[in-house]
Amino acid sequence: MSTKLIEYNEAPPKVREIYDDILVTRKTDYINNMWKALAVHPPTLQRTWQSVKEVMSGPGQLDPVVRELIYLAVSINNSCEYCMASHTAAARAKGATEEMLNELKAIIALANNTNRLAVGYQIPVDERYRQ
Amino acid sequence: MSTKLIEYNEAPPKVREIYDDILVTRKTDYINNMWKALAVHPPTLQRTWQSVKEVMSGPGQLDPVVRELIYLAVSINNSCEYCMASHTAAARAKGATEEMLNELKAIIALANNTNRLAVGYQIPVDERYRQ
Amino acid sequence: MSTKLIEYNEAPPKVREIYDDILVTRKTDYINNMWKALAVHPPTLQRTWQSVKEVMSGPGQLDPVVRELIYLAVSINNSCEYCMASHTAAARAKGATEEMLNELKAIIALANNTNRLAVGYQIPVDERYRQ
Amino acid sequence: MSTKLIEYNEAPPKVREIYDDILVTRKTDYINNMWKALAVHPPTLQRTWQSVKEVMSGPGQLDPVVRELIYLAVSINNSCEYCMASHTAAARAKGATEEMLNELKAIIALANNTNRLAVGYQIPVDERYRQ
Amino acid sequence: MSTKLIEYNEAPPKVREIYDDILVTRKTDYINNMWKALAVHPPTLQRTWQSVKEVMSGPGQLDPVVRELIYLAVSINNSCEYCMASHTAAARAKGATEEMLNELKAIIALANNTNRLAVGYQIPVDERYRQ
Amino acid sequence: MSTKLIEYNEAPPKVREIYDDILVTRKTDYINNMWKALAVHPPTLQRTWQSVKEVMSGPGQLDPVVRELIYLAVSINNSCEYCMASHTAAARAKGATEEMLNELKAIIALANNTNRLAVGYQIPVDERYRQ
Repeated sequence: MSTKLIEYNEAPPKVREIYDDILVTRKTDYINNMWKALAVHPPTLQRTWQSVKEVMSGPGQLDPVVRELIYLAVSINNSCEYCMASHTAAARAKGATEEMLNELKAIIALANNTNRLAVGYQIPVDERYRQ
Repeated sequence: MSTKLIEYNEAPPKVREIYDDILVTRKTDYINNMWKALAVHPPTLQRTWQSVKEVMSGPGQLDPVVRELIYLAVSINNSCEYCMASHTAAARAKGATEEMLNELKAIIALANNTNRLAVGYQIPVDERYRQ
Repeated sequence: MSTKLIEYNEAPPKVREIYDDILVTRKTDYINNMWKALAVHPPTLQRTWQSVKEVMSGPGQLDPVVRELIYLAVSINNSCEYCMASHTAAARAKGATEEMLNELKAIIALANNTNRLAVGYQIPVDERYRQ
Repeated sequence: MSTKLIEYNEAPPKVREIYDDILVTRKTDYINNMWKALAVHPPTLQRTWQSVKEVMSGPGQLDPVVRELIYLAVSINNSCEYCMASHTAAARAKGATEEMLNELKAIIALANNTNRLAVGYQIPVDERYRQ
Repeated sequence: MSTKLIEYNEAPPKVREIYDDILVTRKTDYINNMWKALAVHPPTLQRTWQSVKEVMSGPGQLDPVVRELIYLAVSINNSCEYCMASHTAAARAKGATEEMLNELKAIIALANNTNRLAVGYQIPVDERYRQ
Repeated sequence: MSTKLIEYNEAPPKVREIYDDILVTRKTDYINNMWKALAVHPPTLQRTWQSVKEVMSGPGQLDPVVRELIYLAVSINNSCEYCMASHTAAARAKGATEEMLNELKAIIALANNTNRLAVGYQIPVDERYRQ
């Protein structure tokens, strides 16, 4: 279970090309562990980066910081420690304040609360919401 | 398991008072099934409404529509059909476009994808994210 | 995905033997759908019934109604509709009141709320809880 | 992601008032990390403590130890390490024996087992459970 | 919440191109609802189909039927009704027998059982598994 | 929350008998922590081992390595660290290559992605999958 991380210098050309795209797209000089770990399986690295690039940095109506807040909400909901850490950093970098992060957690907690009530009481969907 | 829904006219005074607060706070004339179902247990109705009112309508830095998008993201992640239906309606009422809802789902799907990769590969948190 | 339910009269001897044990152990004349569905794979039926019999009806310090409440809490938490329906019935049969079932749901909702806060804030376990 | 814990001595008046209520309600001289962490966002601290106080210590038909066992069941089901640790301690303080905690875990494991079978086989809810 | 399904005949060229690739890749004349629903957001349709095509039909060491069994295991674990239905059909089409599907469910149930025990007892990872 | 592990030498006869069956069935001289932890509650140890023995080593149509891959898929999906570690070791011992484990993770990630899309879009099950 020890995780192998492939550094830039030891990466094969195909992986290095993806690393370069990450660096350019994100205007950074840092490759985080997510990509170094996925590099053990280049098709997964390629597919995952392509999806992250499109969904998180591509054109769209949602602000970059809102995208990060949604991503972080899912990651907290799934108890994914790595994802919480990296997307908290990303949310801050894109403008999220500590107050926003606190409000985010309050909403996640509340939604989990009411979700279980809705399931536990088997509440029928209102006719007007079905359209 | 048949869910009892308590209508306004049959509600005891304590429940009716909460219904009135919902109607005023939300500037609506409609009580949705969530509250009619929770009314079977007034302390739960009271506590849940108070929390929803504070978190979703109280002062804060996150826009109302962003709050709804986060709430909806959690509800989709938890497969809560009632909550998806009611908060999709709420998100639209507060300004979410169909495109935004599509982008939201794309982010949720992506985050679930990468969350599992992060867990499956047991990726260590980068030192710089730990601070 | 249509679920085959094997009735007593069409059940092979090995399955009928388990059905008989269910009827005797539960002092009932009704085999519920869970067992009729699992009967398509006798080893699963046998193993599952044996476990349910031991854990839910065997000797132990937890009252039968408390066992059912815990089982129901997990089933609500997992959004398992079948299990919620059957264990709500079982809890009532063993003495759970409507008030108890309402309190149960309030605890489940609260725990989901605080669980997410504990994860979202990455709260460190107190030294005194580690022993 | 480093979690800030706000100690009693450095807490602002509003937070200290809640800490005092925790100490009095629980008849203890110890504030556990959960509250010290939530204190970074007083509205969340206030709302969460109020809910925990009502649901876990307020009037009701479920025994305090049963409430803790249900809370613990949800926390184990959600893999929330902090909550498992704190509510195992609370359950013991309210009278849960080691045998009870072992039986609790056996029920949780069993329910997860049968929940997946019910979902996997798409077992239809018995007519008699639908009422 | 009513789901819009985009039929081949009404699909815009970009979507129709993807539908054609699905038909050719799968050697079928049927587009299932998954794709017709995702077609409301072409970038999601494109990205999802590309990923499914690569992961499920691309080169690799796992047999096609084993890939489907793993996909189905996750879908049952997530209680995703649509995915269970479509991947049960896919698994059968690629050679899974009813006995295999029954064994699959038995393993899923068992793993959920032992997963909760491992979490509930906070079992430390054996040194030999850490390498 | 400190986990007690019961070693062979200190185990009571009933536990030692199960340990012996584990050693013989698995043709090993090593009892892993799972069993040493469950030994604090012999009925749980007995029931769990019996189930694991039957499902994972008993007769059936699924290859031993495929059984392990499915078990591992569930364990990753549930973020169970202990189970991931032990079943990664078991999968390798039964013939899984690193490439297979990488492909497994890609399928798990993909299924989580599409599962959420199917739920988020509330995609109706195709008529042909309902039979």
